[in-house]
Amino acid sequence: MTKHEMIIPTYDDMLAAHMRIAPHIRRTPVRVSQHLNELTGASLFFKCENFQEPGAFKVRGAANAVFGLTDDQAKQGVATHSSGNHASCLSYAAMLRGIPCNVVMPRTAPQAKKDTVRRYGGKITECEPSTSSREATFARVQSETGGDFVHPYNDPRVIAGQGTCAKELMEQTDGLDMVVAPIGGGGMISGTCLTLATLAPDCQVIAAEPEQADDAYRSFKAGHIIADDAPKTIADGLLVPLKDLTWHFVSNHVSEIYTASDADIIDAMKLIWKHLRIVMEPSSAVPLAIILKNPEAFRGKRIGLIVTGGNVDLDRLPWLA
Amino acid sequence: MTKHEMIIPTYDDMLAAHMRIAPHIRRTPVRVSQHLNELTGASLFFKCENFQEPGAFKVRGAANAVFGLTDDQAKQGVATHSSGNHASCLSYAAMLRGIPCNVVMPRTAPQAKKDTVRRYGGKITECEPSTSSREATFARVQSETGGDFVHPYNDPRVIAGQGTCAKELMEQTDGLDMVVAPIGGGGMISGTCLTLATLAPDCQVIAAEPEQADDAYRSFKAGHIIADDAPKTIADGLLVPLKDLTWHFVSNHVSEIYTASDADIIDAMKLIWKHLRIVMEPSSAVPLAIILKNPEAFRGKRIGLIVTGGNVDLDRLPWLA
Repeated sequence: MTKHEMIIPTYDDMLAAHMRIAPHIRRTPVRVSQHLNELTGASLFFKCENFQEPGAFKVRGAANAVFGLTDDQAKQGVATHSSGNHASCLSYAAMLRGIPCNVVMPRTAPQAKKDTVRRYGGKITECEPSTSSREATFARVQSETGGDFVHPYNDPRVIAGQGTCAKELMEQTDGLDMVVAPIGGGGMISGTCLTLATLAPDCQVIAAEPEQADDAYRSFKAGHIIADDAPKTIADGLLVPLKDLTWHFVSNHVSEIYTASDADIIDAMKLIWKHLRIVMEPSSAVPLAIILKNPEAFRGKRIGLIVTGGNVDLDRLPWLA
Repeated sequence: MTKHEMIIPTYDDMLAAHMRIAPHIRRTPVRVSQHLNELTGASLFFKCENFQEPGAFKVRGAANAVFGLTDDQAKQGVATHSSGNHASCLSYAAMLRGIPCNVVMPRTAPQAKKDTVRRYGGKITECEPSTSSREATFARVQSETGGDFVHPYNDPRVIAGQGTCAKELMEQTDGLDMVVAPIGGGGMISGTCLTLATLAPDCQVIAAEPEQADDAYRSFKAGHIIADDAPKTIADGLLVPLKDLTWHFVSNHVSEIYTASDADIIDAMKLIWKHLRIVMEPSSAVPLAIILKNPEAFRGKRIGLIVTGGNVDLDRLPWLA
């Protein structure tokens, strides 16, 4: 596969992905907090993808791509560009299979994320923190290495892999009214739509986005993709724009997109650290932030929240900045 | 029961405690990190008691005491003194049963712990941060309120309750060579000894103590209880001395006590936050700190570590002090 643009993954692709990646990922726990339930008036179920070994749900899609390669394809390794967690997770999956991984990362990515990529044997080439610089640098790196391009989200193998998270979440809970996930490029949201459209068609999929990188919200309202170059928000995992495949799922299956300010995101992050006692990223706090900001839309509901990742720089916590 | 001093709890008391408290506590997950395993050369299984709703294993002993009271006894409520987590957990258990809870806490206890006690309806009376002041203040409070005294550790109901943690840990893992737990007053260690002496007699119990509050280590070496008044360490859950009941278990069943400096404890804490992605207290990092400091004693072993609690002041993290 070299052109994935309009190969739309199916429910069966997601089931096959789950079989393929199960030996390599964790079935992460679902955590609850009586206190957060009282605070929101809802029943919240937090799916802890920050507990994956490399610290993010993206190991699901990455492992599906890496372990789906033929032996011949695998020899060239894999390559990608990523604002962080996809890079770590693809490096981790490539290390498990014993193949090379080249990644292009913005030079401004958190040091913790660069360290993780290198610990897993990934080779980093730095670019400027903009979509345009990232894509240009990547084209050069890929032509030099010949690795299979595993896009961080606009790839049917990746979306099918991310969809396995919602499958586990439904198996681990006794029915949900909705699932809320952060939206950046839309990989997790697309996988969630893919899975729930068949497995739980009455369960709404809600996307949560930083106000300061609200291109998905504006795209959703406009009816076509709107992309920003170099947005700035504390939620550094959500800077990238939708692409055609993820737009397909967002435009057809997402019920609503809500946004939250960076201040709201930091408050929600601290609440989760304090009451769930888990270490997770600002990006992963956007779902709770939008629930706290729009209580009337969520009160009384049973809600799954995807805690997408937990790779933060512990020396630079946002509420201490 | 008003005098518990030499009523030694049995394995059957622990089994009864587990039946009694199961509806009120969580069966907490066990987490692993490939990275921490590589770092130590051991297989580490972290039992996440920080994930109890009130954030500490002490909810086990507290719930066993509270739900073991007759209706007549329960009317007077419960009372205790505690450096923090026992106070929160007893307040929480009392709230679940709907009875009063009076607690004496050092005025220097972390604000987060005081807030938690009050959120659960506990009434706080402050004392100076020394064992002598704590005991004098408590005598006054208890004589005024008449509540059943639930000692934070020197109480057979509490020790039987804490022992349920090691029972779950053994059920959740496929055999362990040893269990390492922090030691302060010795309640968790005693419960662990109580359970493993019957359930897994070949599994060693190792205690981990801060160098700067090493009264248990010195007691263990001397063969009798040595108590300090007002020790100072970052591990603020481990300031209290052994008492006769916990000394019974420590002197008869603990294999070894190791100590770690505050600097080692802080390093281990940060490693756990980074790689297990859980929020836990300095006290709970002492087991990993002693393993890192004494690698030859632990290499190649399957080791359970009790992550005792997760109530920290997120505005005052020790590595940022």
